[in-house]
Amino acid sequence: MRFGTLEAGGTKMVLSVGNEQNELLEQAVIPTETPEKTIPAMISWFRERNIVSLGIGTFGPVDLNPASSTYGWITKTPKPGWSDMPLLPPMRDALGVPAQIDTDVNAAALAEWQLGAANGLNSCMYVTVGTGIGAGLVIEGKLVHGLVHPELGHMFLRQEPNDRTPAGFCPYHRGCLEGLASGPAMEKRWGIKAQDLPPDHEAWDLEAAYLAQMCVNAVCAFSPERIILGGGVMQQKHLLPRIRRKTLELLNGYIQAKEILDNIDGYIVEPGLGTKSGAAGALLLARKAFEEDE
Amino acid sequence: MRFGTLEAGGTKMVLSVGNEQNELLEQAVIPTETPEKTIPAMISWFRERNIVSLGIGTFGPVDLNPASSTYGWITKTPKPGWSDMPLLPPMRDALGVPAQIDTDVNAAALAEWQLGAANGLNSCMYVTVGTGIGAGLVIEGKLVHGLVHPELGHMFLRQEPNDRTPAGFCPYHRGCLEGLASGPAMEKRWGIKAQDLPPDHEAWDLEAAYLAQMCVNAVCAFSPERIILGGGVMQQKHLLPRIRRKTLELLNGYIQAKEILDNIDGYIVEPGLGTKSGAAGALLLARKAFEEDE
Repeated sequence: MRFGTLEAGGTKMVLSVGNEQNELLEQAVIPTETPEKTIPAMISWFRERNIVSLGIGTFGPVDLNPASSTYGWITKTPKPGWSDMPLLPPMRDALGVPAQIDTDVNAAALAEWQLGAANGLNSCMYVTVGTGIGAGLVIEGKLVHGLVHPELGHMFLRQEPNDRTPAGFCPYHRGCLEGLASGPAMEKRWGIKAQDLPPDHEAWDLEAAYLAQMCVNAVCAFSPERIILGGGVMQQKHLLPRIRRKTLELLNGYIQAKEILDNIDGYIVEPGLGTKSGAAGALLLARKAFEEDE
Repeated sequence: MRFGTLEAGGTKMVLSVGNEQNELLEQAVIPTETPEKTIPAMISWFRERNIVSLGIGTFGPVDLNPASSTYGWITKTPKPGWSDMPLLPPMRDALGVPAQIDTDVNAAALAEWQLGAANGLNSCMYVTVGTGIGAGLVIEGKLVHGLVHPELGHMFLRQEPNDRTPAGFCPYHRGCLEGLASGPAMEKRWGIKAQDLPPDHEAWDLEAAYLAQMCVNAVCAFSPERIILGGGVMQQKHLLPRIRRKTLELLNGYIQAKEILDNIDGYIVEPGLGTKSGAAGALLLARKAFEEDE
């Protein structure tokens, strides 16, 4: 049986076909242009592959309420051509297969929980730190869909005392997490692309401090059993140990959990599925769409 | 049938007996002294009332893991005599009835969700703003118990530009939410007890700004369907409208949810059960203890 998966991103669409062993068999990449151009191209790729269902992990914001008349639509986005546009409905209808959609980070969180670094736990937070900062949560054994999906990147944090540009770069909130610590915020702050900042640059301790505050706020707000950090910025392998150290420093012994105090290396971790969490999550959504349709 | 309820606080223990109609029939208040003195006094009060089960909403931190050998114990606390002391076990054993325990704020959140301001919703956050700041969460239809219970009061926030003492007063984290906005933090900041600060004092807009940041961070982190604000500081009735206004201002239109944008008065609300949320929650825990024991 062949399941279709789509990772819908702001710059590219990654299409894939997977099987019941959660293996991804083949892949295609299509640039994200307008819906009028990109959606038909995706439909014809999947049509040739005879899929039984479709799972979509998408950029947001997206309407995830199955009872809504705009379920599976992209809502307000600065991305040209995509505001208030349907994504799931035209693909589901043209392909004639059941389909499910979630945010890219929720899909990744689902995969990390069922197959990756949080397998067997009752809760986790998956965060991607890259062009934006987003999170997917599993709490009490369920993927969280709230009033709207989480927008962790827009949480407010304490300005670090040695931050020279604490106002931040988010067009909505300036100094929210994303405005202080996303890849583009790092580039604006230092005038150098994040990936080109050397490991001994002061940028990294500041970055670690903001991401550690994010971890502390998650522990205080809903106390996940594990925190998984992925995304482009986290490819800098020296960053994770700094975040762990700083998280312990900020918590300052207040939270008495041996899982944190005695084993921070097992508490804040990298994705178990590497860079495949999103694709694996879309495949789980496709399988779910198929099973629930039977 | 008579159910016993205990609201265990740092200064007083409120004992009550309730019935199957969720009515509280009689009440006693015992000062919180040492466990050696206070627990036997509570046992003898309940023993005379022939209760079938006991529900406890307690100050924390408390071990809530039913599989733990210290389930129902107070863990590390600055409260003299109560660190690493059992609370639920001696009462359950002496009274010979089933018992359940949760934090005072989780109990209140449970009651507000089942009987109060969040009745019928799938998620909510109940926050008490008083001597400390604490929260109980319901997410995806379940009361949240994470790795540890939420400690929302210790989340980091952005310092307000017009805050003259932004370092804050938390002994662990200085400028966390509780260190900036609890009742004692207000008193330390202004040299006047919070309840004596007049409504036109600049203290209140600052207080509203920090509590609005808390609301924003909750919306971004897990997106509850309703936020319920209770506790002593919230008795100042002019505070809630300020928090609503400031929350909208801080979100700045980023979160496209009509429940927030069009009806903030219905999104951030006072407790539906007034000051009885905690007691009502303890009664629900007692009923649950009885039903699950049958």
